Amino acid sequence: MHYKIKLLTLILILVVTCGVAWAQFAKPEDAVSYRKAVMQVIGRHFGQMAAVVKDQQPYDKDAFELNSKVVAMMARLPWEASLVPGSYAGDTTLKEKALKDRDGFLAAARKFEDASQELQTAAASGDRGAIKSKFGATAKTCSACHKAYRK
Amino acid sequence: MHYKIKLLTLILILVVTCGVAWAQFAKPEDAVSYRKAVMQVIGRHFGQMAAVVKDQQPYDKDAFELNSKVVAMMARLPWEASLVPGSYAGDTTLKEKALKDRDGFLAAARKFEDASQELQTAAASGDRGAIKSKFGATAKTCSACHKAYRK
Repeated sequence: MHYKIKLLTLILILVVTCGVAWAQFAKPEDAVSYRKAVMQVIGRHFGQMAAVVKDQQPYDKDAFELNSKVVAMMARLPWEASLVPGSYAGDTTLKEKALKDRDGFLAAARKFEDASQELQTAAASGDRGAIKSKFGATAKTCSACHKAYRK
Repeated sequence: MHYKIKLLTLILILVVTCGVAWAQFAKPEDAVSYRKAVMQVIGRHFGQMAAVVKDQQPYDKDAFELNSKVVAMMARLPWEASLVPGSYAGDTTLKEKALKDRDGFLAAARKFEDASQELQTAAASGDRGAIKSKFGATAKTCSACHKAYRK
């Protein structure tokens, strides 16, 4: 009986997980393509903030705040697409470790989400010191996750 | 004198325009790549809303609202990248008409921005009738712009 419950639970988890994956992405390549698009948008807007923080571009509160909003919103999006079985070969830099170490990966992703939210709050305040600090904290969450899960 | 002012104005416009383009995108291919990424994200989240509006997927208020927020925010982003000289050949479906008919293109883009904002408002209200209506109105702005400016 105990064994049957375990088996049923496992089947249920598989059905639900695969069902979500199917519903969300018709093919693993679609997941790769989508998460890469999201990451590219994040990279561009994060890069624009980096140029301001490094004093390579002038600070414009509205532009910086929009960049921070884009990153904070995009930060929520690519994780499901990063956990699609069969999406770790070919045109991707994501290690299959993301799927194998799902909890660790999602924890690292959550750190980035939280940090980017704090950066957005700092950007809305216009406090340059807070912006610099929160930008640096967010950049660290990027690096940490890339170091662990990027090829 | 009149001629000199015209010439100076032209030079100023060129310097400012090119300056912005350079600052924003190092190469035309970067503009293509960025706007395609934004459009892909828009397409995916718009498609998820379409599936709900067409009753192919169940309605989940939070999920639908997030999709509408993503689209409304992304709708602001790809236009500057769509007006970069030299970015209409190769791996793009955007016609050079966008650049030549800049005002018309930006007006069409603005209609999509405005419609997607209204869709977000409807999504936040949870009113299924309003959602369906605003979704349809937004879809029309997509089609109109694609018909005019997409290869």
